[in-house]
Amino acid sequence: MRDFNEHTITQAVVDRFAETPDPRLKAVLTSLVRHLHDFVRDVDLTFEEWQAGIAFLTRTGQMCDQHRQEFILLSDTLGVSMLVDAINHRMPEGATETTVLGPFYVEEAPERPNGADISGPLEGTPLLVTGSVSSADGRPLAGATVDVWHADDDGAYDVQQLDALGGLAGRAQFRTDAEGRFHFWTVMPAWYPIPADGPVGEMLKATARHPNRPAHVHFMIAAPGHETLITHVFAADSPWLDSDAVFGVKTSLIAAFAEHPAGPAPDGRAMERPFRHLAYDFGLKAD
Amino acid sequence: MRDFNEHTITQAVVDRFAETPDPRLKAVLTSLVRHLHDFVRDVDLTFEEWQAGIAFLTRTGQMCDQHRQEFILLSDTLGVSMLVDAINHRMPEGATETTVLGPFYVEEAPERPNGADISGPLEGTPLLVTGSVSSADGRPLAGATVDVWHADDDGAYDVQQLDALGGLAGRAQFRTDAEGRFHFWTVMPAWYPIPADGPVGEMLKATARHPNRPAHVHFMIAAPGHETLITHVFAADSPWLDSDAVFGVKTSLIAAFAEHPAGPAPDGRAMERPFRHLAYDFGLKAD
Repeated sequence: MRDFNEHTITQAVVDRFAETPDPRLKAVLTSLVRHLHDFVRDVDLTFEEWQAGIAFLTRTGQMCDQHRQEFILLSDTLGVSMLVDAINHRMPEGATETTVLGPFYVEEAPERPNGADISGPLEGTPLLVTGSVSSADGRPLAGATVDVWHADDDGAYDVQQLDALGGLAGRAQFRTDAEGRFHFWTVMPAWYPIPADGPVGEMLKATARHPNRPAHVHFMIAAPGHETLITHVFAADSPWLDSDAVFGVKTSLIAAFAEHPAGPAPDGRAMERPFRHLAYDFGLKAD
Repeated sequence: MRDFNEHTITQAVVDRFAETPDPRLKAVLTSLVRHLHDFVRDVDLTFEEWQAGIAFLTRTGQMCDQHRQEFILLSDTLGVSMLVDAINHRMPEGATETTVLGPFYVEEAPERPNGADISGPLEGTPLLVTGSVSSADGRPLAGATVDVWHADDDGAYDVQQLDALGGLAGRAQFRTDAEGRFHFWTVMPAWYPIPADGPVGEMLKATARHPNRPAHVHFMIAAPGHETLITHVFAADSPWLDSDAVFGVKTSLIAAFAEHPAGPAPDGRAMERPFRHLAYDFGLKAD
């Protein structure tokens, strides 16, 4: 086991995993090593490029904190997140399609009652979101958890401006009623650039890629006996639908965020200014 | 550019790099994306595995600091470092073979005169190192910089115990004399486990791999008009020569660290206790 060359070293590394107790871990690491080595050989990676890669990965890890996940952003911008999504969510008829989680999800968002306005200090055009959650076969799901989060009218999430806002906003958990329905008020999110002040931003700049995502609201919907649905609904009138920086758009996830003049809203609220309304029904795949 | 599936998304990501100004960066990223996606498809990576991977990479980045480079350790233990080395250092006759840099190199180690004892507070069997630096064609190289670093008799580097030692030790830069020769005293390094208290240690444990490296002294040797040589010399009587955790051993880099009884050393020093002697001649590849 000495004197490996550029061709024999790969098998030597794979052999070193021979005693791995978990067969799945062994299979994943074996494949990872083979593909990683193939990449290095294919491009004849130089020592300086290897150093730059080590430094890039290090900076990416060190950019992460409680409210910033730069490795997810990297995975998203390299299309890995959507690929993992596609592999794991081959959806039956009636089930809503999935898309990336993104780096701005926060566990344990505050639970709010249906009809609540979750915009807090966020400014922008009022937005009413109404929807339902069913099993893919059409059966309404009562008591499903509907976790929502979205950017403000400047395209910034609450966790990117916590000091200014004083807390979370544009983010909450709802529960569906007996008919599987939920609704809430917030403000219309804008399209936005993903955070470009870190290593992922460097990569996008160096490759002349724009960092923008079309306007959307995130949903994570969970109900007993069903796969948890992680998705967005995109605004049909947003720019960047055809070049989302993270490859997350699917046609079935694009919906009208309909413009309404001032007046009574569908939920009975009297609106003194124009508002928008997103109505979207979600289907969950049974376990 | 919507509704990618697990097969079409790869080309969509590659297409997004179409405007990259630097053709080399474009080629490297294109290959990286293809191999990374192939890996994900080959193993049908689950969402939970993707999450575990993101968390692993994040912890790896956050383990790095001024004196710890966990991503280099990961590259080393996956054989990537030695593969990059093999690709970039196809050596001519007369040139010393290369091996990994490792995570313990420190820029600007103190410059010491030939004959100095660099062991400082490190304990262990005294070791005399004598050597020469030539061009691969045999011409001695005067004024070459010889950067050396090594572990102590417990297998620990100075940078792993700075508080206890009060500074660097077992580490210095020398310059070759008019005949291309250098020599110094230190203590015999022990074989050692690579740091196993981080993500790389988790990986080794989960795969039932030992973390050990055979005893060695690191050398980085630079001279004008020549490629800088990064290598180790391994002790021929050390364990783990056949299963180095980072795949760094090459037969040509194994040498006797010869045992000597107390008495006069080859450099004239009168030794009151037994010592070891490593004699090794280095050849540098011309630019």
